[in-house]
Amino acid sequence: MFDTIAFDADDTLWHNEGLYLTIQERFARLLTTYQDDDVIQRQLYATEMRNLGLFGYGIKAFTLSMIETAIELTGGEICGRDIQLIIDFAKEMRGAPIQLLDQVEEVLADLSTQYRLMLITKGDLFDQETKLARSGLADYFEIVEIVSEKSVETYASLLARHGLTPQRLLMVGNSLRSDILPLLAIGAQAVYIPYHTTWVHEVVEPPTDLPPGYHELGRIAQLPDFLSNPSNP
Amino acid sequence: MFDTIAFDADDTLWHNEGLYLTIQERFARLLTTYQDDDVIQRQLYATEMRNLGLFGYGIKAFTLSMIETAIELTGGEICGRDIQLIIDFAKEMRGAPIQLLDQVEEVLADLSTQYRLMLITKGDLFDQETKLARSGLADYFEIVEIVSEKSVETYASLLARHGLTPQRLLMVGNSLRSDILPLLAIGAQAVYIPYHTTWVHEVVEPPTDLPPGYHELGRIAQLPDFLSNPSNP
Repeated sequence: MFDTIAFDADDTLWHNEGLYLTIQERFARLLTTYQDDDVIQRQLYATEMRNLGLFGYGIKAFTLSMIETAIELTGGEICGRDIQLIIDFAKEMRGAPIQLLDQVEEVLADLSTQYRLMLITKGDLFDQETKLARSGLADYFEIVEIVSEKSVETYASLLARHGLTPQRLLMVGNSLRSDILPLLAIGAQAVYIPYHTTWVHEVVEPPTDLPPGYHELGRIAQLPDFLSNPSNP
Repeated sequence: MFDTIAFDADDTLWHNEGLYLTIQERFARLLTTYQDDDVIQRQLYATEMRNLGLFGYGIKAFTLSMIETAIELTGGEICGRDIQLIIDFAKEMRGAPIQLLDQVEEVLADLSTQYRLMLITKGDLFDQETKLARSGLADYFEIVEIVSEKSVETYASLLARHGLTPQRLLMVGNSLRSDILPLLAIGAQAVYIPYHTTWVHEVVEPPTDLPPGYHELGRIAQLPDFLSNPSNP
């Protein structure tokens, strides 16, 4: 069976989406005299999607999209001082403390004695490196891969790079779209641990017939028991 | 001797710094009614350096620093429309065609028959991935590593990751600071190929006593001859 467990990072090991939502709310308040909240949120998301192929994921891309949205929604009237507030949001996000999900460190310490642990995270290189460094978790991972997109091709090339077969890998993550379905597609196993909120871009309808490699848990603390049960996975 | 040749990318394989300089000039023209050119350039560089630890390298970080500089130099008076022009610079940079240096493709095609080729480039993951994809050079490299900083520690950890000793590696690049000195420090060999312009952040005084692993060439086209000369390197 598998000897390597790969983990997603954002909202699997540490909280992330909540920080984006908090900043989005403050961004909307900044523009409240110009537009309704839901128009602002919709326009911001549309700008993010339009810019995804140009700027990728992460804090800097998000910030550039906020600035562009603010300019659009104010017809270019927004002043430099308010745009500085948006850049200050980015600095605040970068400096925000890393908050681990419950029992993450205990689980990694436990599993690292029996499995090779890997981190596979999508996003801005700089964001992810500094978050990993500040998380205190870096030493548990033998392999860290930061990728710009999590597709079937990405995972296949990561496996090839590390001389792994899909059978040797179990992936754990909170995004069906990025962490689970591509792994199932290449014949690996995957444990889906939903986070209480998911960025709309990551939301997909779960397929109706999930292969036997699919598993779902309520929280990461359940992972060691799940793995030590001989009927799993 | 060595069996692996690692290349830097920006201004070693393809032109890069010129694009930043062009955009910086246009940025300065945008603010010309507020400040003198040299004040603008100095302030932009100071902002970039202040933001380096927050945003890293690359187009998005550069753009956020341009916006912040514009706000500072105009006392917050710059309007949204002008800031949109700065964001449009970023989009233009992202879309700019990749221009290879002379004979790069021939050199890589030649050397890839005898050596394992590696690309080690610093910067924004998304920037570097898309540039490599658009360069048409990706297939020459068995290993591609995109790192956020090129320090002695970075190189040591890359070598460990790929099971390489410094003796097996020759690095080729245009930055003494990032591509040459750290390699010499760990006992590898390095070929310095100066580019006609260097970002001031990358400029260092060359040490007076360079170790025997240090070599310098005028252009990349000289690399195959240099390597086939039995007294080198």
